[in-house]
Amino acid sequence: MKVEYINPFITSTTAAFSTMLGIELTRGNISIKQGSQPRHDINGIIGLSGKAVGVVVLSVDRDVALSVTEKMLGSRPFEIDANVTDAIGEMANIVAGGAKSHLDRYELSVSLPTVVVGRAHSIEFPAKVTPISIPFDSQWGPLVIEVGLVEQSMTVA
Amino acid sequence: MKVEYINPFITSTTAAFSTMLGIELTRGNISIKQGSQPRHDINGIIGLSGKAVGVVVLSVDRDVALSVTEKMLGSRPFEIDANVTDAIGEMANIVAGGAKSHLDRYELSVSLPTVVVGRAHSIEFPAKVTPISIPFDSQWGPLVIEVGLVEQSMTVA
Repeated sequence: MKVEYINPFITSTTAAFSTMLGIELTRGNISIKQGSQPRHDINGIIGLSGKAVGVVVLSVDRDVALSVTEKMLGSRPFEIDANVTDAIGEMANIVAGGAKSHLDRYELSVSLPTVVVGRAHSIEFPAKVTPISIPFDSQWGPLVIEVGLVEQSMTVA
Repeated sequence: MKVEYINPFITSTTAAFSTMLGIELTRGNISIKQGSQPRHDINGIIGLSGKAVGVVVLSVDRDVALSVTEKMLGSRPFEIDANVTDAIGEMANIVAGGAKSHLDRYELSVSLPTVVVGRAHSIEFPAKVTPISIPFDSQWGPLVIEVGLVEQSMTVA
């Protein structure tokens, strides 16, 4: 994954949390994602396609997911329900949509999000992709954005 | 989800398994996906975007995943490793790619697949989407394709 892909996702993540939720994120150290264990229990996954293809995972723990939902809907759910998964899917959507506007030349469009809930699972990127992990801290707790993006010529089709 | 979206995914799934793997699938009863529990333990997820946005989940159990990989690579892995998740991601990619060719008017493109492994998890579609579940049986065991697709005018952005 090219380095110039990374900044648009950092910018769009901090902008999404600031604009939509009114909280500031502090970025940690970017790394190549190691292993397959997701960082947190609630993972919004959304695809990008165009002249590049990619996927973005927004990974948050239970408390962050509940706080995001509370801020969006005005009341805090008691458990991880459809409102919560919709909120995390929507944040993944906004992060991916924001990043694509900074990656004009790839003419990206964003797919539908899915949200995977549960501790005992792994999320695997294709072996040909080197996903980048971007951790953030917030007043609600930590979150991670994972991004894999490759130009179309590299894909099998 | 419109009924005319469904047939392209049935056709592309049976064609993918027949052409790529040399096995015939028998389709079961199509239903609206109920609840959030995935049918099987290994789930290839891939997004579609264009004038519609969507997501396709190819859900298979361990034995089917190992048999798919064995057929693709020539040897059967002992466990669910990166070869297996790559094989299931690639089959999800081929199913989505095949369906898009029958859905010309939406000018769809396909994102990167991710593969979620593990029993104790759920995969949630957005609440506004009505995903369709298409079960198949094969000589290797059962598998399920889940598809959610909506025209772009319905999406928030």
